[in-house]
Amino acid sequence: MLQKITSLTVRDVRFPTSLEQHGSDAMHTDPDYSAAYVVLDTDSGLKGFGLTFTLGKGTEIVVRAVQALAGLVVGKSLHDIVSNFRGFYRLLTSDGQMRWLGPEKGVIHLATAAVLNAVWDLWARVEGKPLWKLLVDMDPKQIISCIDFRYITDVLTEEEALGILVNAKEGKQQREDLMLNQGYPAYTTSCAWLGYSDQQLKQLCTDALQHGWTRFKVKVGADLEDDIRRCRLIRQMIGPSNTLMIDANQRWDVAEAISWVTRLAEVKPLWIEEPTSPDDILGHAAISKALAPLGIGVASGEQCHNRVMFKQFLQASALQFVQIDSCRLGSVNENLAVLLMAHKFKVPVCPHAGGVGLCELVQHLILFDYICVSADLSGRMCEYVDHLHEHFASPVVIQNAHYLTPKDPGYSCEMLESSVKRHEYPDGDVWKLQINK
Amino acid sequence: MLQKITSLTVRDVRFPTSLEQHGSDAMHTDPDYSAAYVVLDTDSGLKGFGLTFTLGKGTEIVVRAVQALAGLVVGKSLHDIVSNFRGFYRLLTSDGQMRWLGPEKGVIHLATAAVLNAVWDLWARVEGKPLWKLLVDMDPKQIISCIDFRYITDVLTEEEALGILVNAKEGKQQREDLMLNQGYPAYTTSCAWLGYSDQQLKQLCTDALQHGWTRFKVKVGADLEDDIRRCRLIRQMIGPSNTLMIDANQRWDVAEAISWVTRLAEVKPLWIEEPTSPDDILGHAAISKALAPLGIGVASGEQCHNRVMFKQFLQASALQFVQIDSCRLGSVNENLAVLLMAHKFKVPVCPHAGGVGLCELVQHLILFDYICVSADLSGRMCEYVDHLHEHFASPVVIQNAHYLTPKDPGYSCEMLESSVKRHEYPDGDVWKLQINK
Repeated sequence: MLQKITSLTVRDVRFPTSLEQHGSDAMHTDPDYSAAYVVLDTDSGLKGFGLTFTLGKGTEIVVRAVQALAGLVVGKSLHDIVSNFRGFYRLLTSDGQMRWLGPEKGVIHLATAAVLNAVWDLWARVEGKPLWKLLVDMDPKQIISCIDFRYITDVLTEEEALGILVNAKEGKQQREDLMLNQGYPAYTTSCAWLGYSDQQLKQLCTDALQHGWTRFKVKVGADLEDDIRRCRLIRQMIGPSNTLMIDANQRWDVAEAISWVTRLAEVKPLWIEEPTSPDDILGHAAISKALAPLGIGVASGEQCHNRVMFKQFLQASALQFVQIDSCRLGSVNENLAVLLMAHKFKVPVCPHAGGVGLCELVQHLILFDYICVSADLSGRMCEYVDHLHEHFASPVVIQNAHYLTPKDPGYSCEMLESSVKRHEYPDGDVWKLQINK
Repeated sequence: MLQKITSLTVRDVRFPTSLEQHGSDAMHTDPDYSAAYVVLDTDSGLKGFGLTFTLGKGTEIVVRAVQALAGLVVGKSLHDIVSNFRGFYRLLTSDGQMRWLGPEKGVIHLATAAVLNAVWDLWARVEGKPLWKLLVDMDPKQIISCIDFRYITDVLTEEEALGILVNAKEGKQQREDLMLNQGYPAYTTSCAWLGYSDQQLKQLCTDALQHGWTRFKVKVGADLEDDIRRCRLIRQMIGPSNTLMIDANQRWDVAEAISWVTRLAEVKPLWIEEPTSPDDILGHAAISKALAPLGIGVASGEQCHNRVMFKQFLQASALQFVQIDSCRLGSVNENLAVLLMAHKFKVPVCPHAGGVGLCELVQHLILFDYICVSADLSGRMCEYVDHLHEHFASPVVIQNAHYLTPKDPGYSCEMLESSVKRHEYPDGDVWKLQINK
């Protein structure tokens, strides 16, 4: 814990996913999955790796923001940081000059996530444990000391949060064993991106069913007739007992969301994800209320920018599924707050993943949620998308539609140096080729 | 209107205001008032000037974001832009890759404001009018065509918005004449920054009263006993009939806000500004409800990051005073939406100003609000802070505590080149001196 952080480097790494329409949805038609990728060096030789996920253009802005935060990290020892992690979180998020750029939202918060993800990775490596295990073995009081309760004490006090963790100690070992044996249930988004042809959908669905997948998400929102055709096709492929979710990626206004999804009720979706603006708490509440009689829930969170927003989504009964994101929020620290609030409101957490590195990261958080907070698997599952894992040193392992529990020390987001080098923007070989085409 | 935009330059301009505690509050203890300053060049020789306000560190991040948006602007003619201004707004705010960094919030939205402010400035210059007059003379249908109604149609449709503008045509000329004669009422924040001594407060208050000021804002939130002493002092200085407002700059949680402000009720503040997180709509609603019996309203908006948030603050009766900001929102376009929604909910708009350039910009918007939307001055006033105006080519003019109506063509945010040069960070003379000290 005496490791001193001697330098922080950040790189702009982009994958040309738009070429094959991977990741295409109603609002993001041509994403190049990318990351601001952070490496912390220490005087002990150990490193910490962290990232935040982006969609291509603008990654350089996040890189600049990480550089602006670097001065608050370099020179500190890991002990300095984690012995007052709440204070360190506050230092990064409440700098008297930089908080104007957020606070705790957008570019500056994405950058905070990248930096803090690297700190958590370093901590787990120092302890020789995968991050989920570091959290699971931690004393509840220490967990609480990592969380900034500012602005959420009206729904969750420190004492309540501690109580939740202490109560969940019962059965903890059995749950950990279960996770080590079977892993955490997942669903797949890989079959039905918006830019895929019907032929592609069919083929991918067939393959997925053969690999044991039972829960499928379909992108919707660009064209209603198209959505009806695509959703019927998928429902037909997967049969009545498997689970179907639909995702509009913020395409609609409130009234439009209600009428559009009502038309899709026939395919019996479990949830409609991001029906409207991620900022519209009251809009999501209205949509939730209108769709409840149809048996359709509302899910959101991948662009819910901080714990204050999640607090209100929960207060307003605006979500039936909380989708945390390992890079949108202020790393593990802020996600812990959201897991605890979701538990208090009895709303299941079904994390957002995909992109690049998000599956690797968020699997740790949802394991902690199950073992130490929710103690419940019903209605719960973690998103999975099947690409770009080959670029990681400890990629996720999926077996029988479950995330197998990671075993390597750290937070699983170390990228292969060869991949980083090839995909650095704009000077990596992959981009030089694109640009010269 | 055929002027083609040939280049966009953006510079990092910072004023070392922290040296004298100007602008200090409970959360921003040492701001260096700064701007990402944009100049659009055209092939006609006319230029457009725009800026977004920042607090020092991190301005370079906003500069990078402006550079990322530049490609969407350069090469277009003014006619291309304003003939489909809604489409152009959407282009900047909904780029398929960059919207992940917001959407419409934080760094990327501050950058959008800087760029669009410059476009509006250019438009007004081309028409040879101050911006407020460009707006006032515009056909209501054209005003509406500048607004992106996405995500707000559940409270304000295009038709309703048009109806508001058409209805307000009655008496419009008289209101314009009144503004030309007496200007728009203002209040001052210059007397009571948190870092000022009691002696300074007294002196500044005395001077302000002599200059005709009747409305005063005091920063609070760091220490309760201190606040009581300072507020009593100010109330004593200004007497019972003048107006006092207090501003906590997001310092409290919900329960703390209620109890703290209750203790300050004795000085009869008109409003408590930013009692808690700017994202906490439901928190502001709870505080509003608790303070209403004490006759204290809640004001917020300078960090309310987009129209979707303002929509909900209004829906939830969470604000009694709407404080628009000319740089936090997506320029004139998005502020028009907020003015119209506030009118629908019968909530007065009292703009945020100060910083650097904010007074210069927002005076135009509030003139438009009075002449073409609200048609009402009761309970309305625009913030004023008395510094850094000397750096502008057309600085605000205050007389008898009113903003005199600007007469020069444009949006009033052109800075003197000599000022920009001296204050550029880090290479301007002012900063070289600081750094070498």
